[in-house]
Amino acid sequence: MPVVKVYEKNEVIAEIEAEKSSNLLDVLQKKSVDIEASCGGKGVCGKCKVKVKKGQKPYLENLTPEEKSHLREDEISKGVRLACKVEVCEDLDVFLEKSSERANILSHFAVNDFEYEENIIVKKVILQKPSLDDQKSFELRLKETIGDGNLKVLPRTLQKLARLKDQEFFAVVYSDEIVDVKSSCLAFGLAVDIGTTTVVCYLVDLVQKRVVDFYSFINPQKKFGADVISRIDFTREKEEGLFILQKEIVDAINRAIQILTEKNSISKDDIYRVVFVGNTTMLHLLLGVDPQTIAISPFVPVFTESICAKPNDLGLEINPVATIKVLNSISAYIGADIVAGILSTQMHKSSKISLLLDLGTNGEMVLGSSSFMLACSTAAGPAFEGVNISCGMGAVEGAIDSVKIENGKVYFTTIGAKQPAGICGSGIVDAIAYMLKEGIINETGRFCDKNDTYKSYMREENGQQAFFITDSVYITQKDIREIQLAKAAISAGVKTMIEHAKITEDDIENVYLAGGFGNYINPWSAIEIGIIPKKLKSKIVPVGNSAVAGAVLVLLSRKMAYESQEIGRKVKYIELSNSQDFNQFFVESMMFENFSQEGEQKQNG
Amino acid sequence: MPVVKVYEKNEVIAEIEAEKSSNLLDVLQKKSVDIEASCGGKGVCGKCKVKVKKGQKPYLENLTPEEKSHLREDEISKGVRLACKVEVCEDLDVFLEKSSERANILSHFAVNDFEYEENIIVKKVILQKPSLDDQKSFELRLKETIGDGNLKVLPRTLQKLARLKDQEFFAVVYSDEIVDVKSSCLAFGLAVDIGTTTVVCYLVDLVQKRVVDFYSFINPQKKFGADVISRIDFTREKEEGLFILQKEIVDAINRAIQILTEKNSISKDDIYRVVFVGNTTMLHLLLGVDPQTIAISPFVPVFTESICAKPNDLGLEINPVATIKVLNSISAYIGADIVAGILSTQMHKSSKISLLLDLGTNGEMVLGSSSFMLACSTAAGPAFEGVNISCGMGAVEGAIDSVKIENGKVYFTTIGAKQPAGICGSGIVDAIAYMLKEGIINETGRFCDKNDTYKSYMREENGQQAFFITDSVYITQKDIREIQLAKAAISAGVKTMIEHAKITEDDIENVYLAGGFGNYINPWSAIEIGIIPKKLKSKIVPVGNSAVAGAVLVLLSRKMAYESQEIGRKVKYIELSNSQDFNQFFVESMMFENFSQEGEQKQNG
Repeated sequence: MPVVKVYEKNEVIAEIEAEKSSNLLDVLQKKSVDIEASCGGKGVCGKCKVKVKKGQKPYLENLTPEEKSHLREDEISKGVRLACKVEVCEDLDVFLEKSSERANILSHFAVNDFEYEENIIVKKVILQKPSLDDQKSFELRLKETIGDGNLKVLPRTLQKLARLKDQEFFAVVYSDEIVDVKSSCLAFGLAVDIGTTTVVCYLVDLVQKRVVDFYSFINPQKKFGADVISRIDFTREKEEGLFILQKEIVDAINRAIQILTEKNSISKDDIYRVVFVGNTTMLHLLLGVDPQTIAISPFVPVFTESICAKPNDLGLEINPVATIKVLNSISAYIGADIVAGILSTQMHKSSKISLLLDLGTNGEMVLGSSSFMLACSTAAGPAFEGVNISCGMGAVEGAIDSVKIENGKVYFTTIGAKQPAGICGSGIVDAIAYMLKEGIINETGRFCDKNDTYKSYMREENGQQAFFITDSVYITQKDIREIQLAKAAISAGVKTMIEHAKITEDDIENVYLAGGFGNYINPWSAIEIGIIPKKLKSKIVPVGNSAVAGAVLVLLSRKMAYESQEIGRKVKYIELSNSQDFNQFFVESMMFENFSQEGEQKQNG
Repeated sequence: MPVVKVYEKNEVIAEIEAEKSSNLLDVLQKKSVDIEASCGGKGVCGKCKVKVKKGQKPYLENLTPEEKSHLREDEISKGVRLACKVEVCEDLDVFLEKSSERANILSHFAVNDFEYEENIIVKKVILQKPSLDDQKSFELRLKETIGDGNLKVLPRTLQKLARLKDQEFFAVVYSDEIVDVKSSCLAFGLAVDIGTTTVVCYLVDLVQKRVVDFYSFINPQKKFGADVISRIDFTREKEEGLFILQKEIVDAINRAIQILTEKNSISKDDIYRVVFVGNTTMLHLLLGVDPQTIAISPFVPVFTESICAKPNDLGLEINPVATIKVLNSISAYIGADIVAGILSTQMHKSSKISLLLDLGTNGEMVLGSSSFMLACSTAAGPAFEGVNISCGMGAVEGAIDSVKIENGKVYFTTIGAKQPAGICGSGIVDAIAYMLKEGIINETGRFCDKNDTYKSYMREENGQQAFFITDSVYITQKDIREIQLAKAAISAGVKTMIEHAKITEDDIENVYLAGGFGNYINPWSAIEIGIIPKKLKSKIVPVGNSAVAGAVLVLLSRKMAYESQEIGRKVKYIELSNSQDFNQFFVESMMFENFSQEGEQKQNG
């Protein structure tokens, strides 16, 4: 069998024996090599670039038309290929182009000041010694000491009680159960937000009732497809696909648990509770539940209610008695992350009307107050995460994340102040906002031939006009069209909800911006290109990762868990694919009509 | 390493490589060879007899004094040894003396006519097709069809729902949970009584609400000690001893499940609920909870309350979502089997006073009515199960189970009408009752020298007077003393409770005889030798295996599960080791004073 040697930064990281004629992307993914393939291996996204050599020579065998269109001449001459198009027929050396980088993710957190009612209790216990006149069991002594004779006890707890009964120890009580007895007084929980692109885990001290650490990572399922639809396709097209995706995410969460527990010098057994939020598809994949009906009309998920499970049901490496709660969702495209977001803003309890925009891989939005709640979702989001954009990339190190175009010059910053490797959502939105302002493009989104000030930044790329931010990072006419479609979808979604609620823009008092993209976007730019109505400019409140914040609330408070159920029942979902209003608004929102002289003062949110 | 070949009925059943100088009993037990060792390998009980050969010759190396005292000359010459005294230094052939035989156990059952309230529900489901106007999840559709929106659902159920949603299927609902969805409508439960000697499993159809089959077997832990104390010793003396005993019983129950499901053509996944009863020590061993404090004063168990567990907690091979309930006990020596027994007689709800005698390896007794409940336990039981009796054996095939001595002749029956191999409890009690009646022994229990009628049955054995029922099955003076001690203990226990309750024998309206021995004993004989007061003769009601009957009630009825908790709280346990009354009554009960001409009419119960 041919052998594939995989190199990263000139080090061999894997040696894989491959079936003859197997697909290189398959071979790499099977061995969990971290490689992007947003389109799921269809040769469309061009992200699975690798340098392939046979001996010392570039491997050019059977170069496909897709590769020729995605790769530059100089790349091809070096042996760069799309892994999804390479057939492994002989021994090959494969060089990964970029090392995988830890995502630059939100860490701001503001729920530590919240007032929580008692939820988990850790109590010091010294049992009274028995005698012939007092023969009651050690279990009953324990319950009496805790002060509740009706508590349940598990076999594992009894096994440990038999060992600890003669010494001072600690009992961990949760709900109606003594879940553990042990010699330490530690009790931790995890709040996990599983995004399509990014996964965030917060480690929460359940006794101190505060967030103590967090860890985030790129969702490893990403290599099987960038968006929910291509992941669902993967479960349908690949035998065991569902199982593979579930294992990927569970393994990755277990690694995060390993890292967080080691770093904080606690044991995995100290973790007694996990709350998961995420979009509906991610939660189906987490539980190993087939999500196929989410992808096809009429878009029906298998479950939306909150689900309780045990670590063993998922293969999660924490205390086996721990309780796992998957928070309730609302519909196929309004997930538990949105329910958690609503919870963290408490907009459902306010008499004022609020708008919540969660702009990540998908764009979800909620409009409402204590008297009504509406939600809808558009699939227009991916462009804002760099997907389908020529030089687009996620918000990881090296991404251009902010741009300023003024006085004939272009300024930018990159994440981690690294060499620019591409551009992420917030950078694209900035660039387009300034291109509008500086007249580089007009309100229809077309490049203006008349603009001479920025002539030196303009040139053709692959037969299209393009604006070059650096030598290799540019924005094409097609990229601008993608952003126009995305912003139109969101804008139309908001307008549809406003229409449905029979209110006006003026009635909205808060605009909560959430999600990976929502949090980094420059509000001025978002208004400038028309994502957010201009009238709402002064009402924007960035809320960070409101999904994981809501998960922490549920982790720490039974009342909040109850509220999340109430939210699930209260929110009315509007299916946009079925909405006349939406289609009308979508067409109307395509233009960059928001642009005006008013926008000239840049606002920092 | 020396090799031990194990033969049963001339067939090799095992070939074991043994460490040089290892103990033969250890070697055999480690490979799960079914061999009795009631004393736990101390060379006291003499039950671990095996024939050992080296090549064709009897293996007589290092014959110990214990073996010389336990083995007859002719046995020694054939190579019969006590496995616990043989050191394995070279290749040996080991011949098991008796093939293990399926115990002859109660099968009578009378709870099928009971009226049960609804408990588990299996409902046929066809889900309504979704549309763009009705996008609710399949889980919600399922709950609506069942008619309860608050039901919980497990991940496993959702996984299956995703596969079954488009066809007709069945939902299994238990308590507040949809525990399963599947294409068959079967739902079964198990009621298991774990006795020190015998384990009984009843297979119950939870839909039809009736017992459909049963399977019973000798508790495989028996090879590590015949009674609870020697098993507890084993957990203390042997590293991993607790784990070994737990594994033995769980493996054996899994084998029983395999047999019952195959025989009844159902799947292990069709089993959704198990109720365990048994004495307190057996339940500790089942859950892997260290029982050591049960064996030493002040005799305190780790737990007595009812425990809920999942199959995975124990390693039980049934549907992983099944609920396991270990019924509540009362004290270290009044177990869940007694609670279940009380439940099945319903004596706790009757205005009449009843006495429940459960005579198995231990003797447990309960006295009470709706207004009071007392219980006590004596360790005197084992003699009634053939333990510490010269020719004693359990109630298995070949055991003499009934004896009649009349007109100078001795009649007997054996279980399975096999060649007599020994005598079990009911046979010994019969024999002693008739020996009293015929004047072979007097009221002090001594053999009467004057009796000539049965002279031919009498001769010396190992320096003691003995009465020979067959050529090789006999009852010695020491055996009679053992029975005297046992019957005195039970009699004194009953008297202590009567005294404590401030009632008289006349106030007792029912005497329920339960347990392996209790059910087979001839009531006339029991009265004759003084186990049961003569006055209660007409009030005896054999109740079969009341423990497993109670377990079935709990399996089928939530109300009964609740009642069992009530019983647990109501019963007052009297610690006899601490009781002045008991010691007084014990001494007084030693004689066979019950004997009288009245007893001449034999009664069949």
